Amino acid sequence: MRIAIAQINASLADFESNKNKILDFAHKALERHCDMVIFPEAALFGYHPFDLLEISEMVEAQNRFLKDIEKSAPKGIGLLFGAITQTKLKHGRPYYNSAVFVERGKKSRFFHKELLPTGDVFDEARFIETGRIADNVFKFNGQKILVTICEDIWAWDDKNGRSQYPANPLKAVAKKEKGIDLVLNLSASPYYPGKEKVRDDLVRKTSALFKAPMIYCNMVGAQDEIVFDGQSFAVDPKGRELARLMAFEEDIGVLDLDKMEGMKRTEKVADAEKIRQALVLGIRDFCRKTGLSKVHLGLSGGVDSALVACLAVDALGPSNVKGFALPSKFNASESEELAAKLAKNLGIEMKTVSIQQPYEVLRGVIDPAMGLKDFGLVHENLQARVRGTILMAYSNAANSMLLATSNKSEAAAGYSTLYGDMCGGLMPIGDLTKKQVYTLCDLYNREHELIPQRILTRAPSAELRPNQKDQDSLPEYDVLDRAVDRLVVEAKLGSSRDEQWLLGAVLRSEFKRWQAPPILKVSKHSFGRGRRFPIAQKASSVLVKSK
Amino acid sequence: MRIAIAQINASLADFESNKNKILDFAHKALERHCDMVIFPEAALFGYHPFDLLEISEMVEAQNRFLKDIEKSAPKGIGLLFGAITQTKLKHGRPYYNSAVFVERGKKSRFFHKELLPTGDVFDEARFIETGRIADNVFKFNGQKILVTICEDIWAWDDKNGRSQYPANPLKAVAKKEKGIDLVLNLSASPYYPGKEKVRDDLVRKTSALFKAPMIYCNMVGAQDEIVFDGQSFAVDPKGRELARLMAFEEDIGVLDLDKMEGMKRTEKVADAEKIRQALVLGIRDFCRKTGLSKVHLGLSGGVDSALVACLAVDALGPSNVKGFALPSKFNASESEELAAKLAKNLGIEMKTVSIQQPYEVLRGVIDPAMGLKDFGLVHENLQARVRGTILMAYSNAANSMLLATSNKSEAAAGYSTLYGDMCGGLMPIGDLTKKQVYTLCDLYNREHELIPQRILTRAPSAELRPNQKDQDSLPEYDVLDRAVDRLVVEAKLGSSRDEQWLLGAVLRSEFKRWQAPPILKVSKHSFGRGRRFPIAQKASSVLVKSK
Repeated sequence: MRIAIAQINASLADFESNKNKILDFAHKALERHCDMVIFPEAALFGYHPFDLLEISEMVEAQNRFLKDIEKSAPKGIGLLFGAITQTKLKHGRPYYNSAVFVERGKKSRFFHKELLPTGDVFDEARFIETGRIADNVFKFNGQKILVTICEDIWAWDDKNGRSQYPANPLKAVAKKEKGIDLVLNLSASPYYPGKEKVRDDLVRKTSALFKAPMIYCNMVGAQDEIVFDGQSFAVDPKGRELARLMAFEEDIGVLDLDKMEGMKRTEKVADAEKIRQALVLGIRDFCRKTGLSKVHLGLSGGVDSALVACLAVDALGPSNVKGFALPSKFNASESEELAAKLAKNLGIEMKTVSIQQPYEVLRGVIDPAMGLKDFGLVHENLQARVRGTILMAYSNAANSMLLATSNKSEAAAGYSTLYGDMCGGLMPIGDLTKKQVYTLCDLYNREHELIPQRILTRAPSAELRPNQKDQDSLPEYDVLDRAVDRLVVEAKLGSSRDEQWLLGAVLRSEFKRWQAPPILKVSKHSFGRGRRFPIAQKASSVLVKSK
Repeated sequence: MRIAIAQINASLADFESNKNKILDFAHKALERHCDMVIFPEAALFGYHPFDLLEISEMVEAQNRFLKDIEKSAPKGIGLLFGAITQTKLKHGRPYYNSAVFVERGKKSRFFHKELLPTGDVFDEARFIETGRIADNVFKFNGQKILVTICEDIWAWDDKNGRSQYPANPLKAVAKKEKGIDLVLNLSASPYYPGKEKVRDDLVRKTSALFKAPMIYCNMVGAQDEIVFDGQSFAVDPKGRELARLMAFEEDIGVLDLDKMEGMKRTEKVADAEKIRQALVLGIRDFCRKTGLSKVHLGLSGGVDSALVACLAVDALGPSNVKGFALPSKFNASESEELAAKLAKNLGIEMKTVSIQQPYEVLRGVIDPAMGLKDFGLVHENLQARVRGTILMAYSNAANSMLLATSNKSEAAAGYSTLYGDMCGGLMPIGDLTKKQVYTLCDLYNREHELIPQRILTRAPSAELRPNQKDQDSLPEYDVLDRAVDRLVVEAKLGSSRDEQWLLGAVLRSEFKRWQAPPILKVSKHSFGRGRRFPIAQKASSVLVKSK
């Protein structure tokens, strides 16, 4: 039996497009003499549906396209793809997260996901009911096949012998069903560096349990904050890799189960490059799936905006990216020059708009009204908000989306101005520490100096008051970054002065992040909707020891 | 046996304060000759913990205060209160949502919640493991008592014979356990109009099932977007009400089980007045629990800002509320006069700051930079953002929180400027339709004209261009409001022109609400964290029929 792995980029609720992709890849699979083609989780609906499922017409609409597929699927090949289906239960939640097996002219078969993720960015227990993978075994072409969906293979014990699930449902299936010939997993699994190894481990354990080859088909593409990386693969029960597909691109691969061999793309790519690809795809898909073609951003002459500009150009092309230099008297003249040089290197337009006059006029109105005399935080934030206002004006003027340029280290420390530099429709590098920002910049400069080197060597500064440096207000970035990884990614508290400082800062600044734009998630745990912290809480009173 | 119902206002992670309240109310109960006192769900931890639970030190810290209670609880009375406890399971999530029964000098007993809500604002399946209420029966003073926590009594069929849960765990207990003398429920149940009836129904059904009296003890107080209303009560198995506590205030009531009688506060209060009280408590607790004492807002001379000002004065007192009139040349002079009159009536300070000059200067910078000639949407948004910038400056200048004044009808239609009138630390009336805004204003004017009548009679206008009226851009408010209730609260689509228009508008404007401040929830389904809609989706392509 030959099986095609169709790693498609499905769009949420874009059923027409998803249906066409499924049929298109089914034809490609048939051309490759395959008996079956498998697609990712929720390939027809798009993933993650979130609360679109509260509108009952959504799944009814999807079902019309499901019927279309049943009617127009190519003959001679079985299609297995993810979809949301109605439970029709009187007692239970309304939907299953299902895999549908379609063969032209036959009654479709349905298999339901058992383990429903609710951690981090996931919310499946809101509208999805629990299935039973023990019911997901079927025969095709004389082969006994077990169908699992994403989380279904995530209940293996970790190295400490722990799991967040009371039981591993795979073990129950292994006890009940003998002679499984093939295990399939349809996934929509978001990317973070090192995720490949985690998945490999789960798939190898599962394959070994059933003593059967296993195919893992992952979604590719981005949905708001979440980026799916593809990298679908297959293994034999000895853990030998039989097939591997591309990262961050649609792809199709074929696995010949009789010969036990498949197509393997084996290019080794470093994590930093994968993060870069994830962010590029995240920007591109957010624009494409919201119907926008153009973006713009403030170019400060600093490293964060430089990186966002590079990513945006990779995502949308230089003609769809526009930079604005927005100097005040506090900006070194070098800042605008560096921004202009960067824009030139990238081939994007840049416009300079001085904020000095509007800033002064606003200050002239605000200071007397509020009894302010000395320059202070008010005026720093004011500059950031004048910039935000000008940049947002361009959104209306040119139907272009503003990209926010904050990074994760700043977001953690609350070192940003709400409605100022936090403005934007998307915050592409909001999940990168400052160190990662430099690493990705270095990547862009590997072949030639795309980002003016001086941008990478000058001391980071918000340039909101004379001679300001980030390190006047923040710990050294290498220290801060490590503290951010420990606290935000691992949720581990530390006792060092800098870690305690960061803990207080994170807890105090939840109100800002509550109102942040969507952040492209490229770590194990990012800010954004996958991290739900309350604002009105006194956690600092028990957690922060030294003040 | 005499039981005290202690309806306290717990604060999230403020263990010291929560512990003191628990001990304080235990003493009050003892003074009232009670044998037992019961508190709300998570009374020690505060509710809803959300992702505070990802930090393992949180519950460890809570446990130190739990030990304090065990050591210093008054003798001669049993205390039953909610807390988060560690499961210590190798396989399963790390915590239970528990009720702890403390008797001085005895080993404490623990009872765990079985049904974990994941819908709307709730997220319990992230860190909480499923308990078994069948294990929650204990003997005290010769009485056999069943302990349930909030959602545990919510699996009764609705009038269509449906439930979102596969089974009602109460029925399993009723089968297994005979002779239950008393059923307790510890809740943290958020308010919406009509919720009382829903709870009454669940409690009466449960009481009847066990043929035993039942006490329902609900949290009071607000946590970010969620307002708990208290209104704890008790019934006998025939459905007769035995006790009822205050709405929106801490309270203690006593139930004598031998005499089958209790304290009843029976004042009938209309829904509109309860919504008003909910919003006042929401503002007050948000400020108190974040350590802020002062708020300010823009007073437009319109009905929304007038209502928010009234609510803020009720919450914090007139000396802690400040208004700003921020006129441009598009504002009728009447607007500022009405704002001033309102401020005078409320006894709050008002300051007028014209935005005309900064607006013109910004326009003078923006128009040439972006090739704009004619007045347009850019300039409307610009005015709103200049206002937002000035109001946010006051936040820094006076350590005061800006209140956003958008209502639910505007939020649904996307009729608001991101980073403009959406600015603020809290959006108090973001869950009120325009009609409800008027109803609450009428309430404030019942005794005398607190809100100048003309504010209530003039046509609503954003006053961002000459002779603008809301109804130039929006359906009539009564039509819009009904459509909002159907679509947003009930998730029901309609086919009328206005309903179709609203559906498109809601789907298009998700990107704005993603970045909205916390919204006080006073309906069955509000915008905010309890409604998780994706931005990048094509739902309109299948849902919106007429364009």
